[in-house]
Amino acid sequence: MYIPTYEDMLAAHVRIAPHIRRTPVRTSEYLNELTGAELFFKCENFQEPGAFKVRGASNAVFGLDEDQAAKGVATHSSGNHASCLSYAAKRRGIPCNVVMPYTAPQAKKDTVRRYGGQITECEPSTSSREETFAKVQAATGGDFIHPYNDHRVIAGQGTCAKEFIEQTDGLDTVIAPIGGGGMISGTCLTLSNLAPETQVIAAEPEQADDAYRSFKAGHIIADDAPKTIADGLLVPLKDLTWHFVSDHVSDILTVSEAEIIESMKLSWKHLRIVMEASSSVSLAAILKNKDRFAGKRVGIIITGGNVDLDTLPWTT
Amino acid sequence: MYIPTYEDMLAAHVRIAPHIRRTPVRTSEYLNELTGAELFFKCENFQEPGAFKVRGASNAVFGLDEDQAAKGVATHSSGNHASCLSYAAKRRGIPCNVVMPYTAPQAKKDTVRRYGGQITECEPSTSSREETFAKVQAATGGDFIHPYNDHRVIAGQGTCAKEFIEQTDGLDTVIAPIGGGGMISGTCLTLSNLAPETQVIAAEPEQADDAYRSFKAGHIIADDAPKTIADGLLVPLKDLTWHFVSDHVSDILTVSEAEIIESMKLSWKHLRIVMEASSSVSLAAILKNKDRFAGKRVGIIITGGNVDLDTLPWTT
Repeated sequence: MYIPTYEDMLAAHVRIAPHIRRTPVRTSEYLNELTGAELFFKCENFQEPGAFKVRGASNAVFGLDEDQAAKGVATHSSGNHASCLSYAAKRRGIPCNVVMPYTAPQAKKDTVRRYGGQITECEPSTSSREETFAKVQAATGGDFIHPYNDHRVIAGQGTCAKEFIEQTDGLDTVIAPIGGGGMISGTCLTLSNLAPETQVIAAEPEQADDAYRSFKAGHIIADDAPKTIADGLLVPLKDLTWHFVSDHVSDILTVSEAEIIESMKLSWKHLRIVMEASSSVSLAAILKNKDRFAGKRVGIIITGGNVDLDTLPWTT
Repeated sequence: MYIPTYEDMLAAHVRIAPHIRRTPVRTSEYLNELTGAELFFKCENFQEPGAFKVRGASNAVFGLDEDQAAKGVATHSSGNHASCLSYAAKRRGIPCNVVMPYTAPQAKKDTVRRYGGQITECEPSTSSREETFAKVQAATGGDFIHPYNDHRVIAGQGTCAKEFIEQTDGLDTVIAPIGGGGMISGTCLTLSNLAPETQVIAAEPEQADDAYRSFKAGHIIADDAPKTIADGLLVPLKDLTWHFVSDHVSDILTVSEAEIIESMKLSWKHLRIVMEASSSVSLAAILKNKDRFAGKRVGIIITGGNVDLDTLPWTT
């Protein structure tokens, strides 16, 4: 397996700069008082398709040679990766095929289609997904862009931490949620080179704590079907992300569902931004471990803001 | 009555710069496609106390001489002006007295108190409010800072349009909601000098359209008790704001309650920011009058983001 390098991340940043936003950093005097830390929130929810995943997707799409680009890209995802890959492919004007269970929320399908993605539906099972995906790929020749276990994707996600360090005057710690580990891996890739003194901490729901248990055990543990409101964090680590997590992450902190919802509401109220439950895991971990972060300059990556406003966790 | 000048606005900007945020400008490819215009959203909801009113309040508070500052400031308001004035007074370390009906939402009282404001409750009637306020002012000697009919406040609000023009490469139109007219007056003050070719348009709820009717009639019409979800826009124009509205506003556009809610939800979803119903009136007016804005560079002032997340209009 090819491990992406710091130079790959730098090249990715140049490649994707015209296609992504250099997202702003928000602060809140109130949340600083509440936590005793100095918090900086990097708003990846402000990317046009609403998630950091547009970085990795754009790096993969705009790095294709002309021959492959003509055949397009393909993936299986029912989350932000699908819409971000569709968005990037639309910007380059190439096909994007997405395999998605027919049970995926209509809103997610609508977003993929709005960006020109072509959806092929499958049954909500791993075997059906793999079989359907193989057929789609054979028919189209689309390059498979994995949501996180892909060196181009990780190099792309690493550009976020580069901007974050440039936008702040250094950080003691960067904290981000962990699912498959794409953002955390990119963050490790960048910070281990650019700011090796900055700690990288991952945050995870207790109810989907496979990365935490992997970290403690020293090898990947994948769960069958975790259940959490943080629906961007259900997927397990893979070999490439495990490389970065095991090599450079300082710690993984877990939080309860109630703590995630409380943190989500607190962020909406005081930062006045719309962020996903998956993004709220980080602040929840800080609030649960105040002593650990007190007095420090802490960077929090707000990973996404695609939320169903009709079914908010505190109103339903 | 003293009409604030462009130089007053410039002096205000220097005075308040250390105490306010130079708020970012957001864009959305999706909302551009939807409206056919090029939209720029100035995020005053990102001020620490969550509203543009911190500009005018800070200009008034930091412009006081030492003698008056020792006695502090006073106002009657149950909205963003009360919390923004408390916030500014706290930053200067001076007293802030607020008269508020005992029926005001607990959350609003909590915010004022969090910023050190001293609340005196009154009955929810104009006579009780005026009587109570007179007593408080006599006892404290606090300088009365009206929420909008005050030249210092208007000069302060005008700093937002200055930043907006600096942050964009010129705008064809700036649109903002109108209640008492403080923000619109400040915007007129600034743009009539800095960018006289830029149109200023006000947006108002149909159910509180006193500014619209005043504008058409050529004199102030004040309603008794308008009812709208845009609860920041209930108050009538006064002589100072009428001066600017009648002199420089190009038009006032009105929208229905359903249109406000639709626009609010659309903004939350695609800009991923939390904004008040009062702030959503502007985008609603653009969506209702697409032909008028198509092809134009339109600046929208997002006036505030203090929302009760437990009672959102589309979930209750």
